[in-house]
Amino acid sequence: MPNPRIILVETAGARNLGSVARVMKNFGLSELWLVNPQCDRLSDEAIHMAVHAREILENAKIVESLPEALMGCQRAIATAGRIDKGDMKVTNPPQGLSWLSQVATSAIVFGAEDRGLSNAEIQHCQQVLQIPVNPDYPSLNLAQAVGVCCYQWQLLRDDPKSHENLTSQIAQDLLKSAPIDLAPREDIEACYQQLEAVLLKIGYVYPHTAAHRLRKFRNIFDRANLSPSEVAMLRGILRQVNWATDQ
Amino acid sequence: MPNPRIILVETAGARNLGSVARVMKNFGLSELWLVNPQCDRLSDEAIHMAVHAREILENAKIVESLPEALMGCQRAIATAGRIDKGDMKVTNPPQGLSWLSQVATSAIVFGAEDRGLSNAEIQHCQQVLQIPVNPDYPSLNLAQAVGVCCYQWQLLRDDPKSHENLTSQIAQDLLKSAPIDLAPREDIEACYQQLEAVLLKIGYVYPHTAAHRLRKFRNIFDRANLSPSEVAMLRGILRQVNWATDQ
Repeated sequence: MPNPRIILVETAGARNLGSVARVMKNFGLSELWLVNPQCDRLSDEAIHMAVHAREILENAKIVESLPEALMGCQRAIATAGRIDKGDMKVTNPPQGLSWLSQVATSAIVFGAEDRGLSNAEIQHCQQVLQIPVNPDYPSLNLAQAVGVCCYQWQLLRDDPKSHENLTSQIAQDLLKSAPIDLAPREDIEACYQQLEAVLLKIGYVYPHTAAHRLRKFRNIFDRANLSPSEVAMLRGILRQVNWATDQ
Repeated sequence: MPNPRIILVETAGARNLGSVARVMKNFGLSELWLVNPQCDRLSDEAIHMAVHAREILENAKIVESLPEALMGCQRAIATAGRIDKGDMKVTNPPQGLSWLSQVATSAIVFGAEDRGLSNAEIQHCQQVLQIPVNPDYPSLNLAQAVGVCCYQWQLLRDDPKSHENLTSQIAQDLLKSAPIDLAPREDIEACYQQLEAVLLKIGYVYPHTAAHRLRKFRNIFDRANLSPSEVAMLRGILRQVNWATDQ
């Protein structure tokens, strides 16, 4: 059960970065990605809070955008506190992390301290994970949110039963129908971009309706757990449609 | 399901106190007891870290000894990281908190940041709760340890049977990921026929390869459990492609 990446988008607090590194190591996770960080991961404050997890800060990968951080991931889950998720599937930590654990490469994405993840960022993930909180004060500290997810991951890893239980009856059937070999997210994302371009070109969507309509396609194809060859096939047909409409 | 007290013994860090108050409120807990605290619960650092949970710090009860803090509790659980617990019963958070939830008044006890709980202190409790951690770096930040317990409590409160039910929960969840409202087979079949016609027209397949290639599309869309509106959408786009290639 390979560990997920922890991806932090535009983190502003160096102390939070350090606390995240510490709690990741406490629960056996190590791969930290920082998207456009707004603070220095190796500042005194970060190092101080990381205590014995300094190497996680040192080895953190720094990238410009969320799609870069998701390169190679087969499944990604966005954490969010707000309720308005549109058509996205919302799960709690035990369910969402069970789902992540079914693939080899996965990621959990956390937004900036003040604003969380934007809707555009959430669209790069397939599910939204909501930590169950008190509606009177739902705003968790970033490192606490990461800590809860890392803890839940550790529980899942410790208890093989909760994973074996997935193989019961109907769940087993549904899982069997999914190819083991999931396409990487960036290929699926490129496929969606290509689909959007074609739909705009043939006039099926307009620029202002494209995102909403594309969400429906994403839902269908995300449910289908596309394999690499299936993504290649879909992209082939989109190229052909593009070519045909040029003739 | 009445909430447990959170009892902190000889906490030294004011920032930790504030973080504990915040995460307690995030997960709906409110009763904080401080045994012989080594810092000021109303210091600037504590208040700063508590953010919107200042009242938990203000209302905290301050006592001299752990037995005083446990007055009136029917069950108490000590948190500890080390293995040597003598003959105390050791549980993990889901099990330990389920056990606490069976009584009206209960407490979760946390030791000082540097030394944890002494054996004498642990003896005042009936069980020892161990958060499953990485043996390479087992030392959780105090507020993270409290956060994990509060989160687990909230999960339990949301779904008292969550532990036993995880199996069926995941199965249900997998089922839910498919729309309940499945499209009739004949509509899906008509959609496949239309797709085949378009693929032939744009030269993506030839008559002798169409059936084989269409099988791959059927696999994808059958896995996705299409709803009637999704089938209608797919047919709409196929009509539009057809129209666009006629222009």
